[in-house]
Amino acid sequence: MGSWVNVAEVWRGPFLECVHRGRAVICDSSGDVIAEWGDSSAVTLPRSSSKMLQALPLIESGAAAKFGLTAEHLALSCASHEGAQIHTDRVDKWLAELGLGERDLRCGPQEPRGCLERDALICAGKAFDRTHNNCSGKHSGFLTLNKHLGGGSEYVEPDHPVQQAVLAAFEEMTGETAAGFGIDGCSAPNFASSLRGVATAMARMANPAGLGAVRDAAARDLVAAMKAHPDLVAGEGRACTELMNAMDGQTVVKTGAEGVFIAILPERGLGVALKIEDGATRASECAMAALLVRLGVADANHPDVVKRLRPTQYNFAGLEVGSIQPAQEFFADGALI
Amino acid sequence: MGSWVNVAEVWRGPFLECVHRGRAVICDSSGDVIAEWGDSSAVTLPRSSSKMLQALPLIESGAAAKFGLTAEHLALSCASHEGAQIHTDRVDKWLAELGLGERDLRCGPQEPRGCLERDALICAGKAFDRTHNNCSGKHSGFLTLNKHLGGGSEYVEPDHPVQQAVLAAFEEMTGETAAGFGIDGCSAPNFASSLRGVATAMARMANPAGLGAVRDAAARDLVAAMKAHPDLVAGEGRACTELMNAMDGQTVVKTGAEGVFIAILPERGLGVALKIEDGATRASECAMAALLVRLGVADANHPDVVKRLRPTQYNFAGLEVGSIQPAQEFFADGALI
Repeated sequence: MGSWVNVAEVWRGPFLECVHRGRAVICDSSGDVIAEWGDSSAVTLPRSSSKMLQALPLIESGAAAKFGLTAEHLALSCASHEGAQIHTDRVDKWLAELGLGERDLRCGPQEPRGCLERDALICAGKAFDRTHNNCSGKHSGFLTLNKHLGGGSEYVEPDHPVQQAVLAAFEEMTGETAAGFGIDGCSAPNFASSLRGVATAMARMANPAGLGAVRDAAARDLVAAMKAHPDLVAGEGRACTELMNAMDGQTVVKTGAEGVFIAILPERGLGVALKIEDGATRASECAMAALLVRLGVADANHPDVVKRLRPTQYNFAGLEVGSIQPAQEFFADGALI
Repeated sequence: MGSWVNVAEVWRGPFLECVHRGRAVICDSSGDVIAEWGDSSAVTLPRSSSKMLQALPLIESGAAAKFGLTAEHLALSCASHEGAQIHTDRVDKWLAELGLGERDLRCGPQEPRGCLERDALICAGKAFDRTHNNCSGKHSGFLTLNKHLGGGSEYVEPDHPVQQAVLAAFEEMTGETAAGFGIDGCSAPNFASSLRGVATAMARMANPAGLGAVRDAAARDLVAAMKAHPDLVAGEGRACTELMNAMDGQTVVKTGAEGVFIAILPERGLGVALKIEDGATRASECAMAALLVRLGVADANHPDVVKRLRPTQYNFAGLEVGSIQPAQEFFADGALI
């Protein structure tokens, strides 16, 4: 799988209890590597971190304009949301506007991560459904594109026109022929590239100049939508939302399952991608926070940055028992570039 | 932190998406290493995997006999239970018999892991409390010992007679001077030794001959209690309970936080201890299942073993998307010893 570096340390009292390894890379829009930790040529499934790439055809096809999608719709199409009411209400309305409903989503039902919503459903004796799935916004986008294309009721087969459009956008943005795909948690294909390819695609989201007018506009719209609605991209208390709110209003970050995290820095024209070897979210969040601080776009002392960069660990009685820290070799002192 | 080996692989479609590293060691009661993967001399916090060692003074002091503790009490004292009613009812009764109550526990309140109990509490508008803490049985054991010793209301300070008795038992069983302690999730000190020391202690639980009549009886009682009540040691659907039920009725296994797992094999006189570098439970369960199969005490085709050894991964829609597999270098073909 190529080389890894130590990324995050988990301390308990005087003991280094766990170590997470990972790889990370920062690229510009030409695909040049600005900085790299571990082997960034290794093939990676970007999982949900690639949702904004999967949403490009929604705009570029004309579907978004035809169905009057707003920045809120676009933010949801890039979201891994927690199934809170602010998300599901908008998805319900979006589907209704398409003349569709929850039954038309091909993501499975997922228990909401927002405890309030989960508890309210359970106490009301109601089941959670597909609108609660963290990907229901992405799938509403797929359904919008599918309606525009005149597709049938299905849309997640890898050879379906919706997914073929996603594949084309993914390959153009990463600058690579996809290495294949895995089936994602939401049943859509998740196309694979090198980690460097993912970072390059994010740099192109940050600086789409030279990609043609259609892609340029689509990329800018999606980045603007995520910047404008961090609460729709994830939700209350979640890393993506809190980090975006804590930063400069320009930088976009997006997590993916199994320890993936990306960042889009429009003002710098840079893209960041990282992957944790073991898939741990606590490590991907720590690593991303470390890189955002080193890139000068996050304040190492902001409480919502500290919560990921150097979170104190408390036990059930509220006692401080340890902390997570970025590894020295990954988080050297001083600015990065 | 010493060397690690690849232990478990996470596959998604054709891609090796994650790798977990770990170390493991099998010892006999003299402390001799029978088999080793990675550096077993590295210091490890055994976390909840050491609960049966922490329970030795409860019996050896005479407290268990004085207060009429049964095998159920002893199994709970070694448990990381899920806060289901079968656990909390027994803890409530135990505390009442001591003339104590939930308020006297020094573990913090923990949300029950058993969803039925959690949901019932929430829908009834009731808060979870300290009896739901996975360690409430261990703490009831501490309180029993403390009452026997005539201690005050506190009992988790590292220099308290209860914890000093635990420390003495831990050092005698591991054959090492403790390397220090971390504060555990339940606020008690968790003493550290080498991973080899933990495996040696488990081998001595398996074969306590030569440790003196008092320890011999205490170790046998605790192992017998865990064997007799796998449901009290963890709970429905949990790895420890299901693996013990799936095996030969002789082998005891116990998990610990941050990727620790131990096994006690009385018929072989062996102890096993393993630790995952990144702390992942999915990897510690896979690794322990692999070792139990190689040791000939678990059937690689039993559904509850397969569930940990080679679990198929399904997405929210119920589609098969991947699997977890023991790494080849950790799980070679054939019997181990």
